[in-house]
Amino acid sequence: MEPASKVDQTVARTFRAIVQYDGTAYNGFQRQRHGVPSIQAELEDALARLADRPIRVLGAGRTDTGVHALGQVISFTIEWPGKHGPGALQRALNANLPPDIAVVELVEAEPGFHPRFDARRRCYEYYILNVPVRRPLLRWRAWHVARTLDVDRMNEAAKLLIGVHDFATFGRAPVGDNTVREVHSAIWRREDEMVIFRICANAFLQRMVRSVVGSLKMVGTGGWSKDDFADAIVSCERKRSGTAAPAHGLYLVSVEYNN
Amino acid sequence: MEPASKVDQTVARTFRAIVQYDGTAYNGFQRQRHGVPSIQAELEDALARLADRPIRVLGAGRTDTGVHALGQVISFTIEWPGKHGPGALQRALNANLPPDIAVVELVEAEPGFHPRFDARRRCYEYYILNVPVRRPLLRWRAWHVARTLDVDRMNEAAKLLIGVHDFATFGRAPVGDNTVREVHSAIWRREDEMVIFRICANAFLQRMVRSVVGSLKMVGTGGWSKDDFADAIVSCERKRSGTAAPAHGLYLVSVEYNN
Repeated sequence: MEPASKVDQTVARTFRAIVQYDGTAYNGFQRQRHGVPSIQAELEDALARLADRPIRVLGAGRTDTGVHALGQVISFTIEWPGKHGPGALQRALNANLPPDIAVVELVEAEPGFHPRFDARRRCYEYYILNVPVRRPLLRWRAWHVARTLDVDRMNEAAKLLIGVHDFATFGRAPVGDNTVREVHSAIWRREDEMVIFRICANAFLQRMVRSVVGSLKMVGTGGWSKDDFADAIVSCERKRSGTAAPAHGLYLVSVEYNN
Repeated sequence: MEPASKVDQTVARTFRAIVQYDGTAYNGFQRQRHGVPSIQAELEDALARLADRPIRVLGAGRTDTGVHALGQVISFTIEWPGKHGPGALQRALNANLPPDIAVVELVEAEPGFHPRFDARRRCYEYYILNVPVRRPLLRWRAWHVARTLDVDRMNEAAKLLIGVHDFATFGRAPVGDNTVREVHSAIWRREDEMVIFRICANAFLQRMVRSVVGSLKMVGTGGWSKDDFADAIVSCERKRSGTAAPAHGLYLVSVEYNN
């Protein structure tokens, strides 16, 4: 008898995927104790149903409770028949995921790929709905700030974030890590009723984007001067940050790699 | 003693308002039996709390279960102190409404104004998300159709709707009314990943927009020819309509008046 051709063999293969989710119903990306809903648990449970065994999912960023993603990157290793391409796996996975999570891209990964350690740049966007009256259809999609924001002032202050700085004012580092990060870009733009912040960095501290947005909102309403913001940065004191902006305006939009 | 000045008097005044809502949690606009959530019940309950007596709300259009509104028009009569302007009433009302409903504009109405009988034109938009993979953040905002739609074909067919026709194929009339309506415009446009239908008419039958969209989607995927659509219209048979598109892609965007 001939051996099965390579294409029929079921071997363990590593995949890399882009995942979008509505974070409203989840306690963040990271799997927690049993019964607490998380994106990672949903992904791992869907994969376990397909593979009939536990599958571990790695993610690029640990988004907080209520934070959304348009471009979260994950990887996982699964025994998947060679004759079934990544497209079939993506469809099977989406059919097993709840409607508020979807795999929008899936490819076979290079050996050893790690979505967190290999990422060289992450970009987040924060949406502020800047109109006097709330918009019901956007209530889980943007932070409603009724007072008109001065986007030019906010951009002047945001420039101070760019470069390598200790961002201890705005967030905590994971255990064993420091609070220095490199911010590549940080810019506000107005689009109709929205004021949108886009910030890219090599990595972010926990709560960093929301604390930065909460502080820059103070600048935008006139409560803080640009110097107040500068002083807050250099203080490296958590209590000097403005109140963190709510999670439901924050989106992990992309994670970039060298390969 | 001097009589109270006119501005201090509390008299019954009629207001006209534009209301937006996320229809997801409601069984449509119209108040139903006790315990069934509706937009009208929420508005009337909020007004009753302000007025300390029952207040009746009239609406321009009876949107179905799950249908959204960006420009629903309502009216109501309330005893409101002359010294408090419509702005104060709007704020008080929004503070008493759930977060998925908001009054975005409120003015004093002309005597005898009726939002339904006086309306001369209504416009609806229907959003189709036309990409292979679903988008979790849009799952209650647009109908996901994976197959690429031919917008030109759909527009060719949509032109057949324009004018005065019997639209019995696409919906039911209220008791005592006929099924003839005048469609002023009906056009599809593509915007990034969305295919959006905008239709304006003097008035609409129940389910009409969703039945028209379901039928034109058949034209867009190639399942129906333009002639099939024309035949469906002239048949005036409900069973000849395409399956109604889901409610969560439909928005009442505006209601127009002569004054």
